[in-house]
Parts: sequence; structure tokens; C-alpha cells
Amino acid sequence: MSDIEIRPATGDDIAAIVAMLADDELGATRETPDDLAPYQAAYELLAADPNQHLVVAVRDARPVGTLQLTVVPGLSRRGSSRSIIEAVRIHADERGNGLGTRLIEWAVAESRTLGCRLVQLTSDATRIDAHRFYERLGFEASHLGFKLQL
Amino acid sequence: MSDIEIRPATGDDIAAIVAMLADDELGATRETPDDLAPYQAAYELLAADPNQHLVVAVRDARPVGTLQLTVVPGLSRRGSSRSIIEAVRIHADERGNGLGTRLIEWAVAESRTLGCRLVQLTSDATRIDAHRFYERLGFEASHLGFKLQL
Repeated sequence: MSDIEIRPATGDDIAAIVAMLADDELGATRETPDDLAPYQAAYELLAADPNQHLVVAVRDARPVGTLQLTVVPGLSRRGSSRSIIEAVRIHADERGNGLGTRLIEWAVAESRTLGCRLVQLTSDATRIDAHRFYERLGFEASHLGFKLQL
Repeated sequence: MSDIEIRPATGDDIAAIVAMLADDELGATRETPDDLAPYQAAYELLAADPNQHLVVAVRDARPVGTLQLTVVPGLSRRGSSRSIIEAVRIHADERGNGLGTRLIEWAVAESRTLGCRLVQLTSDATRIDAHRFYERLGFEASHLGFKLQL
């Protein structure tokens, strides 16, 4: 199997990322891969913000994984920055081969490089396999995650 | 009782905010209100980032509440931005009088104004009263919140 490269996403990766977001039990009802315009607009916001790191994992020039890492400065914990991991997706062809671990380990290492003291993420309460995955990587399910749709 | 004003925090509010962060069961072990230098450095990062909204609730010119609202653009959910509420604190003199509700309702309204489609926050699993509070305000505890300290 050829090597994986993890690199910043470009505008050319948007369609592949949206396809991965949509190919998911929860994402299927929320995404519109046939209409990329809103995603292109959001990509411009991400690209212009130095605290946003949208990446793709690429095998043979094809994006097969993605996540978004956000650095959030703050006063808490003696002025520590924290990072937030969102929108983790692995292409269906690549599940179960360790790519998710590679991506999360990349995000943790990058958070350290960026000076963060804490990495956090939330996972839908129904994604039991994901919970075990994050606990194996050293994350602690110490919090409840509350959401309010507007 | 005089009126509450919610406004952006200034550098002059840092000591009062840190005192509130420290006057908390969990925060007591994590903060150093006698050494404000790291907080001042973090405040500069917040002030320079247009996606960060650190606010204080002020009564009689005295900060009595605080929270940080962060806007996070993203591709998920058709390119929706979401907001994240962190570091919510109410001064001990003001607890139980509805100020927390005022602050969270401000954050929700501001998130809407800023174009966010989702507001999210995490709350330590041990803060049972806080969970009931957020549920009363319409938040759903749909996720687990994972943290990894670096």
C-alpha cells in the first residue's frame, strides 16, 4: 500500500472532502455534494484564517481522509491556547486500516507545535466505536457536549 | 438592582476575569491570579482575532460575569459556521439571579447575528447543575466531550 501524506487542503480538494462528509450516517442528511457553492464560500473563510487548519490525508494523489483543526486562544488555564478537532472523516475504502489514528496523531502533534496545551473534540453520543477510538488515543471523555441549532 | 451591560472585555478587565476563572472548584487549581502576565499575552491574541469575542457582564462598572464566544467556519453542514462558548463564569455575588441565562442568551443571539448555524459548548461531566441549566436554555447534550492535555 502506498504512503499517506497529510497536507493542507486546497480549493481543488473541496469536492472530495464534501463527498467524505456526506458519506456518513449523520452527514448524509446534512450535506449537498451536488451543490458545492456554499462549501467553496466556507473554504475561503478557512483559508483566510490562520487559526484554521483544514487538512487532507492523500494516497496516490487522492484525498482519503480529512479533519479540521482550530486553534482557540483563551484566558483560562493561565492563558492557554487549545485546539479543537472537527469534521474527521475517513473514506469508506480506507476504514479500519489505521488512517484515523494517523490523522488524529497528526492533529495532536500539530497542536503541540502550535503551542496548544489541550486538544478537544466532541463526538455524537451514538458513535460508540468513535468513543473507544478516541479513548485508545489517550483522550478522556470528561465532558458532555451540548449543541443548539439556530 | 442596577442594570447589567454585556460588552467586549478590555485589557483593564483581565484581573477581574482571572479572579472569576480562579473562583471555581475546577479553576482554583488551574489559574494564577497573582501572576497576570500569561493572561495579558493571551488577551492580545484574543483581541487580534476577529473570530474571538471575549465579553464581560458589568454591573455598576464592575465585571460580574464573563464568557468567550469563538466563531469557527467549516465545510460541514453545507459550509456552516458554528460558535463555541467557553469559560463561562459568574461572580459568586451574582449566582442564582439569572445573570448566567442573560449571558448565554446574549451568546446565542450574537451567534445568530454572526451567521452561525450551531452553538456548542462542553461542560465538565461533574457539573450537574450546569447541565440542567444548558438544557433549560434549549441545548441538547447530544455529544461526549473528549479532552487530551498536552
